[in-house]
Amino acid sequence: MEPAGVQLPQGVHDSGPDEAELRRELADLWSRLFDRWGYREVVPPTFEFYTTLASGFAGQKAERLFRFFDRQGRILALRPDFTTPIARLAATKLADEPRPLRLWYFGSVFRVEERHGYRSEFTQAGVELIGAAGPAADAEVVALAVTALNRAGVEGTRVSLGHTGFLRALLAGLELTPGEEEAVVTELTRRNLVGLRDVLGALNLDEKQLKALAELPHLFGGPEKLAAASRLAKKNRQAEAALDDLATIGRLLGAYGLGERVSFDLGLVRELDYYTGMVFEVYVPGFGYPLGGGGRYDGLTARFGLPGPATGFALGVERVLSVRERQGKAGCVKPPDVLVVALPGCEGAAVREALRRRAESRVELATDPMDERGAVAYARARGIGRIVLVGNGVQEIEAAVD
Amino acid sequence: MEPAGVQLPQGVHDSGPDEAELRRELADLWSRLFDRWGYREVVPPTFEFYTTLASGFAGQKAERLFRFFDRQGRILALRPDFTTPIARLAATKLADEPRPLRLWYFGSVFRVEERHGYRSEFTQAGVELIGAAGPAADAEVVALAVTALNRAGVEGTRVSLGHTGFLRALLAGLELTPGEEEAVVTELTRRNLVGLRDVLGALNLDEKQLKALAELPHLFGGPEKLAAASRLAKKNRQAEAALDDLATIGRLLGAYGLGERVSFDLGLVRELDYYTGMVFEVYVPGFGYPLGGGGRYDGLTARFGLPGPATGFALGVERVLSVRERQGKAGCVKPPDVLVVALPGCEGAAVREALRRRAESRVELATDPMDERGAVAYARARGIGRIVLVGNGVQEIEAAVD
Repeated sequence: MEPAGVQLPQGVHDSGPDEAELRRELADLWSRLFDRWGYREVVPPTFEFYTTLASGFAGQKAERLFRFFDRQGRILALRPDFTTPIARLAATKLADEPRPLRLWYFGSVFRVEERHGYRSEFTQAGVELIGAAGPAADAEVVALAVTALNRAGVEGTRVSLGHTGFLRALLAGLELTPGEEEAVVTELTRRNLVGLRDVLGALNLDEKQLKALAELPHLFGGPEKLAAASRLAKKNRQAEAALDDLATIGRLLGAYGLGERVSFDLGLVRELDYYTGMVFEVYVPGFGYPLGGGGRYDGLTARFGLPGPATGFALGVERVLSVRERQGKAGCVKPPDVLVVALPGCEGAAVREALRRRAESRVELATDPMDERGAVAYARARGIGRIVLVGNGVQEIEAAVD
Repeated sequence: MEPAGVQLPQGVHDSGPDEAELRRELADLWSRLFDRWGYREVVPPTFEFYTTLASGFAGQKAERLFRFFDRQGRILALRPDFTTPIARLAATKLADEPRPLRLWYFGSVFRVEERHGYRSEFTQAGVELIGAAGPAADAEVVALAVTALNRAGVEGTRVSLGHTGFLRALLAGLELTPGEEEAVVTELTRRNLVGLRDVLGALNLDEKQLKALAELPHLFGGPEKLAAASRLAKKNRQAEAALDDLATIGRLLGAYGLGERVSFDLGLVRELDYYTGMVFEVYVPGFGYPLGGGGRYDGLTARFGLPGPATGFALGVERVLSVRERQGKAGCVKPPDVLVVALPGCEGAAVREALRRRAESRVELATDPMDERGAVAYARARGIGRIVLVGNGVQEIEAAVD
């Protein structure tokens, strides 16, 4: 028979033992960290109704959901993020729990991806802080995202802080059509300065309006950029409120000891549609993609029938592993400590020897009887340093391992 | 706006914090156990090409795969088990690693399910021991399955051992059509004695053949049932080889200390198509479903281009949690140890206090400033026993918690 189906679809991936071990270490580490900060894990289903999951993926982005049908012809989809299912969960099964709710997750998300080298299935870990409105909640999730990366051994993490409210305030005065607004936001999301200039040039804007929007990507830096942003917005109250919010979050991040890592970035726009306030990205300079990000999404739980504020973040687990590897922190699974081998006819005694030693050591029990020479060759091939040969008695042998 | 999409599709499920904690504890426990036995974790993708995954799901069972399309119109499917993707992985990415390969997994699998109360997405944990042919490998995976359940606190586990080779030997002499053979196997799989009698009655069999097949479901018990099976099979060499294999596995399980838990069950047939030798199920008397099972599948890696023997098991995580709960071992997440609260204006000092205490304790930092009365009410509602109120100084308060 022709070997069938050994290839994988575009964008999915096997984690072999070395990578799987690093993933599990990260999950263990973050599980303990999130617990220390008062967060509890939840696990939503891998797929659910398309209408539930589409909240963050309106318009063209809906094409990025993997869709299929149930037996009744209803549309199902693989979750493209955790924020939407957890908002649903918070508004339903966890509706009666006291607020704020602190929840965390670790698992696969799925987005149709045609670009080479990008993943269709990737792993996100993150938290949702649901039912807390103030800047302290936003500062907590930003600080926890950075702390999670620090604990994972990522060096040189930086944070960009932006605010959806500031951009909305600037756009609100321009009377753009929805299509024009989407075009501006798209170019900002891509940080495409040339594209932004072209889009703005085609709009019917006066000089000052044009300058304010074109200036946005340059409003990146310390607290002085908040003052510059304030001058651009010219006493627009919504814009001022957003800048005050950012200033408070920045001060609280100073109390978390993260002041040096934070920059304000008024041109920061996150791809998903549900953000309503502070947004942020965490990154390592020189690494091509943000390691994660998040922000405030006060409108999302209302879509599931329970209005309330919320904020959170997601980290890209594969990106974290990749930047760690680039920083020299790769890992690999160690071979077992001991190989227990039966001489022919002594299989039962070898079983008992292996069981006894497993209280202390990582033990491989050879599935076939071997003589001493065979056992040494086998242990060497697997990198196992100690052999226990079980015959009438028990003999320990050190195997030379590179 | 109408609350949209708060319902979940049939057969999927949210794990709230209590259940998620139990799941993670189980994964941690089994991760350490499998490591001690020399197994390494792997994580195959959640979906891949349908043709890859259909190996264990031929004929009508193919309807149980969740299928969808990629952009090129190729058929993808959600994994219905881990054995097939791991066999593919062993035959490709891990083809050059020394044999035997010991691998384990923990994750979701997906099967279309119309029956009420059954899951479409459920969690399996298990191992695959690939490249080892003898009964010692089969005994190892059976022993590890039982040990995993014991470690999880499940009481009264029992094992049924059967053999695909024995049934095949009996059927081989009957010259049945493939449809007739499938009908017999289906009734055996369902352990439907009435159905089996009806199916057998409609076949053109002589008295002895009929009696041998009808007797199969009654060949359940100790080693004396192997002798009875041998008499039924009347010196059929393939049947004798299967029974010898089972006897050896049974003796080795005695060395593992599991002799009392094991029964032979020559009528045991597993649902999936890829089994070729020993098959087994682990169960707790009085609990309606097996907790897991597995067996030898020597033909599967050959489908992916690398012939070789293999054996393994899968446990149903939700069933394990359910039987533990029935045995009185439910759990729930404990509230944080400490609530840190800022008096108004002292938010930065409270952040530093919370950070300091997280080295030792599980700490919730209140997102809004409160006075003492407010803090006590808040802590009580959440079941937190200790409050740290941060103003100019730091004040500790015990909150009376039920």
